[in-house]
Amino acid sequence: MPGSSIGGALRLQTFGESHGAAVGCVVDGCPAGVPLDVARISGWLARRRPGSGPHVSARREPDVPRVLSGTYEGLTLGTPICVVVENLDARPDDYAAMHQWFRPGHADFGWHARFGHRDPRGGGRSSARETVGRVIGGAVAQAIFDAWTTLRGHPRLEIVAWVQSLGAIEAHGPAPHMLGGSIVPAGAAFAFDPQTLTSTDVDRTPLRCPDATAHAAMVAALECARRDRDSLGGVVRCVARNVPAGLGDPTFDKVTGLLAHALGSLPAVRGVQFGSGFAAAGLRGSAHNDAFVRTGSGGVATATNHAGGALGGLTTGMPLVIDVAFKPPATIPQPQTGIGPAGPAESRTVTGRHDPCVAPRAVPIVEAAVFFVLADLLLRPARLDSLP
Amino acid sequence: MPGSSIGGALRLQTFGESHGAAVGCVVDGCPAGVPLDVARISGWLARRRPGSGPHVSARREPDVPRVLSGTYEGLTLGTPICVVVENLDARPDDYAAMHQWFRPGHADFGWHARFGHRDPRGGGRSSARETVGRVIGGAVAQAIFDAWTTLRGHPRLEIVAWVQSLGAIEAHGPAPHMLGGSIVPAGAAFAFDPQTLTSTDVDRTPLRCPDATAHAAMVAALECARRDRDSLGGVVRCVARNVPAGLGDPTFDKVTGLLAHALGSLPAVRGVQFGSGFAAAGLRGSAHNDAFVRTGSGGVATATNHAGGALGGLTTGMPLVIDVAFKPPATIPQPQTGIGPAGPAESRTVTGRHDPCVAPRAVPIVEAAVFFVLADLLLRPARLDSLP
Amino acid sequence: MPGSSIGGALRLQTFGESHGAAVGCVVDGCPAGVPLDVARISGWLARRRPGSGPHVSARREPDVPRVLSGTYEGLTLGTPICVVVENLDARPDDYAAMHQWFRPGHADFGWHARFGHRDPRGGGRSSARETVGRVIGGAVAQAIFDAWTTLRGHPRLEIVAWVQSLGAIEAHGPAPHMLGGSIVPAGAAFAFDPQTLTSTDVDRTPLRCPDATAHAAMVAALECARRDRDSLGGVVRCVARNVPAGLGDPTFDKVTGLLAHALGSLPAVRGVQFGSGFAAAGLRGSAHNDAFVRTGSGGVATATNHAGGALGGLTTGMPLVIDVAFKPPATIPQPQTGIGPAGPAESRTVTGRHDPCVAPRAVPIVEAAVFFVLADLLLRPARLDSLP
Amino acid sequence: MPGSSIGGALRLQTFGESHGAAVGCVVDGCPAGVPLDVARISGWLARRRPGSGPHVSARREPDVPRVLSGTYEGLTLGTPICVVVENLDARPDDYAAMHQWFRPGHADFGWHARFGHRDPRGGGRSSARETVGRVIGGAVAQAIFDAWTTLRGHPRLEIVAWVQSLGAIEAHGPAPHMLGGSIVPAGAAFAFDPQTLTSTDVDRTPLRCPDATAHAAMVAALECARRDRDSLGGVVRCVARNVPAGLGDPTFDKVTGLLAHALGSLPAVRGVQFGSGFAAAGLRGSAHNDAFVRTGSGGVATATNHAGGALGGLTTGMPLVIDVAFKPPATIPQPQTGIGPAGPAESRTVTGRHDPCVAPRAVPIVEAAVFFVLADLLLRPARLDSLP
Repeated sequence: MPGSSIGGALRLQTFGESHGAAVGCVVDGCPAGVPLDVARISGWLARRRPGSGPHVSARREPDVPRVLSGTYEGLTLGTPICVVVENLDARPDDYAAMHQWFRPGHADFGWHARFGHRDPRGGGRSSARETVGRVIGGAVAQAIFDAWTTLRGHPRLEIVAWVQSLGAIEAHGPAPHMLGGSIVPAGAAFAFDPQTLTSTDVDRTPLRCPDATAHAAMVAALECARRDRDSLGGVVRCVARNVPAGLGDPTFDKVTGLLAHALGSLPAVRGVQFGSGFAAAGLRGSAHNDAFVRTGSGGVATATNHAGGALGGLTTGMPLVIDVAFKPPATIPQPQTGIGPAGPAESRTVTGRHDPCVAPRAVPIVEAAVFFVLADLLLRPARLDSLP
Repeated sequence: MPGSSIGGALRLQTFGESHGAAVGCVVDGCPAGVPLDVARISGWLARRRPGSGPHVSARREPDVPRVLSGTYEGLTLGTPICVVVENLDARPDDYAAMHQWFRPGHADFGWHARFGHRDPRGGGRSSARETVGRVIGGAVAQAIFDAWTTLRGHPRLEIVAWVQSLGAIEAHGPAPHMLGGSIVPAGAAFAFDPQTLTSTDVDRTPLRCPDATAHAAMVAALECARRDRDSLGGVVRCVARNVPAGLGDPTFDKVTGLLAHALGSLPAVRGVQFGSGFAAAGLRGSAHNDAFVRTGSGGVATATNHAGGALGGLTTGMPLVIDVAFKPPATIPQPQTGIGPAGPAESRTVTGRHDPCVAPRAVPIVEAAVFFVLADLLLRPARLDSLP
Repeated sequence: MPGSSIGGALRLQTFGESHGAAVGCVVDGCPAGVPLDVARISGWLARRRPGSGPHVSARREPDVPRVLSGTYEGLTLGTPICVVVENLDARPDDYAAMHQWFRPGHADFGWHARFGHRDPRGGGRSSARETVGRVIGGAVAQAIFDAWTTLRGHPRLEIVAWVQSLGAIEAHGPAPHMLGGSIVPAGAAFAFDPQTLTSTDVDRTPLRCPDATAHAAMVAALECARRDRDSLGGVVRCVARNVPAGLGDPTFDKVTGLLAHALGSLPAVRGVQFGSGFAAAGLRGSAHNDAFVRTGSGGVATATNHAGGALGGLTTGMPLVIDVAFKPPATIPQPQTGIGPAGPAESRTVTGRHDPCVAPRAVPIVEAAVFFVLADLLLRPARLDSLP
Repeated sequence: MPGSSIGGALRLQTFGESHGAAVGCVVDGCPAGVPLDVARISGWLARRRPGSGPHVSARREPDVPRVLSGTYEGLTLGTPICVVVENLDARPDDYAAMHQWFRPGHADFGWHARFGHRDPRGGGRSSARETVGRVIGGAVAQAIFDAWTTLRGHPRLEIVAWVQSLGAIEAHGPAPHMLGGSIVPAGAAFAFDPQTLTSTDVDRTPLRCPDATAHAAMVAALECARRDRDSLGGVVRCVARNVPAGLGDPTFDKVTGLLAHALGSLPAVRGVQFGSGFAAAGLRGSAHNDAFVRTGSGGVATATNHAGGALGGLTTGMPLVIDVAFKPPATIPQPQTGIGPAGPAESRTVTGRHDPCVAPRAVPIVEAAVFFVLADLLLRPARLDSLP
């Protein structure tokens, strides 16, 4: 049964294997009249591409998107938007030896158990290359929000993610409950301000960490791991600002539920948390509850933001704050113990081109997922007087 | 648009407001021929009900399920199973004062922003009472697995959850990566063994924590919080044993993605993690990767279980290990600052009947969600030779 | 996999077996703020119930709907609306003899082949009693349209169906292409005018045919069939007036495609056609095309209505005209040749209570299906400037 | 909201505008291990392409499919299959004059009303060119059935459609109730035998009508219409042989309900009927019911086939018989009255390349739709003992 799509009012269907002909997606449900050009999509894909240097995969894909449908004269038509990105630097031969051997830390064995037939080339469908389609979905979602906020005179939705931690190194920014809230401890000195941080700022650093000191340490840690033929995990934090209040549904389609699905299904993700997250489990209610306040413009806000922008699954209008934990990449250039369908386990060194830490590259992918979920919810009218 | 259902091959549609006439669900997609009796459902609902004593909500609902459809002569028909549970101890008048005031930590303001019209009685649809339907869904899912494992001669799927932490108190069991794996440190002495723990064991303790020492400390902490008119958060850990290998899809419908959705959409949840979870972000690949081994019976297993039973979104056959973080309940019997649609914020004491910590009651709800997701995946044939 | 729901933005999940505890439905996706009272639903169910006299089933169900969820203070909440109707006049013993015998013209054999396990009582899930849930769905859909048209100052959506033919007798009304169009042949004298006909008019006649002469002939034909222990088929025609233009999608979710699904899945339906329908296949384009005209109020209309209110799957604002063909009921009180899982075919007389012609009772069921599909489409914003 | 996909266990998402870059589809849910090569898809597309001569559109598209994903070494992977067909003979300039004018008989006005923004080039998304994706979906579905029947030793599923009528000319074959049944009137002499007819037979005739005499008359009628600058409608009849018994669900997902959706959403369709169809409405139950019989091999069949292979929405194993009515193409090379967003109606002659009758070209499109629906149902296990 179909397992490669997500979304209700806005649906993203991705397709493509890592070393097949192409990857891409179809976005169905985008309303008509949204300005959408290829440059926006290319920009997102460029951010997803590995940079250069020792810390990234050696695979070089130009990732030129081709929009096959759904737009006319620069505007969406309300019809499915299919975007295709060719796989040009595929090297399927790299993986020949892997066909009858299940790599540790990879989906190979599960594939064998579930599907029987498997594409061993670079993980096939299980490759992070699938996220090309997800990033395109995020680009379309951003276009929807940009058009909608312009039309409504609502401040532009800004979604910014960064590497909050890499291995044991953590960036020193304000805690989630301070984001959007008015209580910042006196004398607090943070290395960066998530309230004003932009993706451009983040992208300026090779490892996408806006804390310069932490960044230097992360570079060193990654260098160290590389020398040891090893890899590192990391946490990406994402903040969404100017989120309209009231997005989400009270039960399964909570904004947190949908984000957990969209982010929890990214490659290498091992955990997702919102606002104070797991730390909230250690707090008392009196400390965790965010008091409501009246804003200068007569709106509603909260004094703190332990909730991370969502209460009961509906957005409050405060910044959404989300953490996503990525495991260290399973492919490392040293011998590891895997196994085949039959016979004893044996040690091999897996070949292929991989990043030593996925967190930096995951930054735009996380942003795209958050854009997509919020746009999906924006397109769901929930009250009689909001019908067209 | 519809937002109250989950699942692909097996779909759970819940309905009901906390103080409306009834709550319940429709489970559609259950195959025909599965033994299903009311006692199983009643048993699950009994586990979900508050116990007695000072640490639980004072609301007393008998929660007698009525199966309206979908079975005949004790077997499922392959048709929708509708189960209704009446709300008998509803006290809507308790909430009259809340109608024009948004409680801190609750969905009220988001509701107002999204739907305009709101049922203020006990949170209405946003109440944890909605989980009655989710637990029934889990009961049906368990029945499917029980019938299937019997038919196939596969070991019975066992899913056991417990309170791993409550406030600052943590139970002392083996770390996730040791569950199902063969590497337990010499001399390790744990307070309980998740490999053999049963739900009966867990339910024997009032706070559903199998570590007696930690349990005593949790009782004290909760008593302390209650005295201070406060509440506490907690973490529920869940282990699924005897999971068939190969459940899940490589992209959006990863077993982890679907679990993140099902668990991340539970009331009061702030985070979900799998296996080593957020801690994995601090590890190197060489430490995190689980080596494959050949089992005595010729099967495939892993020596450790950092992956928590899922690689690339497909189950490995190793125990699934999942942590779910619950925030402290927002309703506490002390003044808090809320606000209405207009006017300044003001301090009120919210009335109503609530648990001082939801984690103990969430234990069967988490188990039910995991059963449901696994059954949904079991019902998705993925290869030609597994078609009927 | 789930097969008991329909709809995208508005979803109808039905449940219940004919002689089980109850039948009903959950409607998910209804926006908040729609006035909905039980009287509306009761009114629809009363219209669906058999009347009295020789031409209808002897089963007597009061069909009192109980709304379990989704409304508060007379308005919908935007949450799932569950409505349950108890089965009170079930007589399961009537069907004991049928368990191991597949009745001709019924789903029994297909059930046996597909599900293995079967509820033989009155057809179980395959009974027309399932349409109780569909009619409730139509009532909710009508409530949505009534509220929306009031809010927008749009003329009220009116959907009226009637028995256009019963056996060989046909009502003498204007052809579909004349409905809503301005070209009525000079001197045409029709027995009724579908432009002004109301459901009250239709319901006034026992067989729901607004042509008095044809009605008398239908009564005679049905009496004749009853005497011969036989049954009759019929065609229901449905007209929807004041349909907003632009409902529908260009491909699979054409208004005609969704109507074909909703109507083609009704019990006993053998065909569905739109506008000139099968007759259109015999026309030339120059005769079939409807010229566009400017209306007095500056709107757009067509001079004729061969299209039956939909072009390319999108409504034109002209009346929708739909015909639905119902086969003669399979249960007739005379011996027929059926068969069991094993052994030779044998002749039996099927017992049970059934209508000798379903078309009259199908009238409100068809109307409900059309209301439902149109409301589902109304709730799908398709352009940027129609977003909330 | 998404409106360009169909199917539950097997989902077909189409995309593309008539004169955009490309058209195509993604098929998600196909199991792994199904042999699928490009030649099969090319073969289907070749059958969909216009032939040559005066009776077909002058547009010349090579329709070379490119399979971007979902297969490896000739077998499906269980992942989404994306197939793209470039639009090479697009002539967007042909349609420039149509942008501000709504063609009679076309979706233009509905588009304007619904989406605001419109692609006027050849109907854009509303063009029959969208059926390229549907035909590919049928090819994949056929591949699934071919592999499954081979594996199970079940006779190959054969689906054959033909032009049953064109304008006023009707092919002289046996009535639907005789197909698969054993009652053929003595002395009946039909022009062809649908029990043995193949698609190759059908394709041998330019208008895809297997009755040579009727075919000659159809050619003449079409020539006549062409001379008069006009178009003609037609009916396509489709027979599916060797259908497994028990496909379908008892309520909304009846095989007839899903076929009505898949076929009723094809371009230019005005009606769909099953078995005796609308004629069944004129019969008595005793004449319409098909007696069950025991076959020589001990199976179950019916003596006649008024039901057209489906009872209560489940297949009986008898041939499915389906009629689909197509209206005459709206584009005819003579002046017609259309209108724009403002101003009076005016007469214009629509340009563009179109078929004078769509029925012949619709033949493989109808077959593809039937293949797709049946495969979707095949992939839905409905009983415990048919789970993998």
